[in-house]
Amino acid sequence: MSLTLEAIYRVRSDARSIEARAHAIAVEQSVEMPTEAIDDDRVISNIVGRVAGIEEKGPRSYEVRIALAAETVGHDPGQLINMLFGNTSIQDDVVLQDAEIPAELAKWFGGPHHGLDGLRGRVGAGARALTCSALKPQGLPAKKLAALAEQFARGGIDYVKDDHGLADQAYSPFSARIEAIAPALRAAEKATGRAARYVPSLSGNLDDMRRQVAMARQAGIDTVMIAPMIAGLANFHRLVRENAGLAFFAHPALAGASRIAPPLLIGKLFRLFGADAVIFPNYGGRFGYSAETCRALARAALKPRDGLRPSVPTPAGGMNLERVPEMLDFYGRDTMLLIGGALLASRERLVEATAAFVKAVERHGHG
Amino acid sequence: MSLTLEAIYRVRSDARSIEARAHAIAVEQSVEMPTEAIDDDRVISNIVGRVAGIEEKGPRSYEVRIALAAETVGHDPGQLINMLFGNTSIQDDVVLQDAEIPAELAKWFGGPHHGLDGLRGRVGAGARALTCSALKPQGLPAKKLAALAEQFARGGIDYVKDDHGLADQAYSPFSARIEAIAPALRAAEKATGRAARYVPSLSGNLDDMRRQVAMARQAGIDTVMIAPMIAGLANFHRLVRENAGLAFFAHPALAGASRIAPPLLIGKLFRLFGADAVIFPNYGGRFGYSAETCRALARAALKPRDGLRPSVPTPAGGMNLERVPEMLDFYGRDTMLLIGGALLASRERLVEATAAFVKAVERHGHG
Repeated sequence: MSLTLEAIYRVRSDARSIEARAHAIAVEQSVEMPTEAIDDDRVISNIVGRVAGIEEKGPRSYEVRIALAAETVGHDPGQLINMLFGNTSIQDDVVLQDAEIPAELAKWFGGPHHGLDGLRGRVGAGARALTCSALKPQGLPAKKLAALAEQFARGGIDYVKDDHGLADQAYSPFSARIEAIAPALRAAEKATGRAARYVPSLSGNLDDMRRQVAMARQAGIDTVMIAPMIAGLANFHRLVRENAGLAFFAHPALAGASRIAPPLLIGKLFRLFGADAVIFPNYGGRFGYSAETCRALARAALKPRDGLRPSVPTPAGGMNLERVPEMLDFYGRDTMLLIGGALLASRERLVEATAAFVKAVERHGHG
Repeated sequence: MSLTLEAIYRVRSDARSIEARAHAIAVEQSVEMPTEAIDDDRVISNIVGRVAGIEEKGPRSYEVRIALAAETVGHDPGQLINMLFGNTSIQDDVVLQDAEIPAELAKWFGGPHHGLDGLRGRVGAGARALTCSALKPQGLPAKKLAALAEQFARGGIDYVKDDHGLADQAYSPFSARIEAIAPALRAAEKATGRAARYVPSLSGNLDDMRRQVAMARQAGIDTVMIAPMIAGLANFHRLVRENAGLAFFAHPALAGASRIAPPLLIGKLFRLFGADAVIFPNYGGRFGYSAETCRALARAALKPRDGLRPSVPTPAGGMNLERVPEMLDFYGRDTMLLIGGALLASRERLVEATAAFVKAVERHGHG
């Protein structure tokens, strides 16, 4: 095998069966047929997956490393996930734990266009942590969402994203949101001297998302959100590549359904395909990620690799003001904190609550 | 709430917590914020998810039915899965078990253009079960794959699909496969008087897949394969809608990674979005689906509903000739049997092995 990638699985097995199981995974994820029935030498030597390592990790738990030919992937993000986990995803004794992607391939995919520095630069955040909130509930008309956005902006927030449930529904179509929210934020900027960024959520097929991107750019918007597992990884990557000026937040919707370790899928792969920020459920909130998973995910998003820009780890999901110091201690400053519902719950005091959030982030480490 | 869909979850919980847990899911999958912070009456009455039923199903196991407003979905397949399971997919105490989709919405999505009757009609199969095999291993050049396809055709197979690992790799690009395999099958047709269908696998982003579809149609190919969970459901649906003449096989790659019950995802939703045939791992093969899961999946694919054409249940994954009678007893004739590796393993006797497979299917129930 010439250029290889390595898929790293966690496999539930007993000691007696693990070698055979590892070999079966190597076959499943490459040629998917009995190797003795293959009479092509090049396929045997270059394409059949190879067991590169088996290591016991605990009772009935093994790490299995499978080397796969990079040429099986070509340059397609969808085919990358297919080679790493397509069929094996259906076998419930296996979790896709990690993947080593050759630098050539990583560089070709290209990663974020802006990343941490870019997202900080746009809002003049210096070296501090970024702040973000969410427009919701879905069902509100665009005008009401715009009023919320304006209050977040007056409170000094950096980024205001759509809730991921906001798509292109009749009660507040994408175009109506853009038309209402972009000027609301410009009004707030005039009043405060500080620009908050609206991050609308893309949805639908690639054509739909391109139309939405065009509308957003037309209105001067430079950041958008996408749920890569719903959009399809290849479409996400395509949009990133053809919109170098745009920054992308990746939302984890449907990503959690996979038996793919979150540090790999969200921290490493979403970054690889171009996410400037990766949103994920923080530990101790409504979701079950552990502190270790969150730390590993944040590290994967930020870690220097293959010249890719870092992606901003953006913990979310039931966060509140009281947790800001703890979260900044945990994640450091290279992060974006996202508080949605807990701010919106302050209703008529939304501007003040937002300002308190912003201040807590700015003050951290200076007091 | 006016028009509603219903998401049906299986939730792990104790009796004391299940009501609160059900309410939390209803909120998570709709407004995703504390309901007491919502001051819009229309959102409260029309958009917030409603717990429609809780039923104990076993020890610490409950069925929870949540009613969601159909207007939250619009007409986007991606947004449908987002509303059914976007964030809740990240909470590992919940499986998405089923969904009730209003007939209006189902009709709008439209289902398969051809379905069971169409796939039978194309190959003159009358009322018998269909036969299918797979071109592999990946890594073979297009010419060698074409030689295999021709042998399958001479053996009398109905459909020859690409292995799902075949994408657009340099060693056998999509275009080269089309150019080599379409004429090989025409040659076989001249010799046998019977036409086998080549089913190439689409990959990449929506642009890529459209180019591939155009190439396939140009070469007279009328059936293609797609992996909806990799392509993105909305892109899959778009391709179906704009290619009414094409039949689509849906491949389950990455679908198994979700905690979504296979009868729902593969049997119901893939059909809803237009799969004429749905491939899935048969019980007793390399994958862990039970016989009950397979039966429920096949029923969901075939069941009369909302005027949608039935999708052909296509069990696969480590099948062989010996199992043909058992599988036909189990699934009945409204099925397509897919045997790949076990046929290819017969190597120089591939035509004869294929003919034996075809004969076993034709004879079943007649002797």
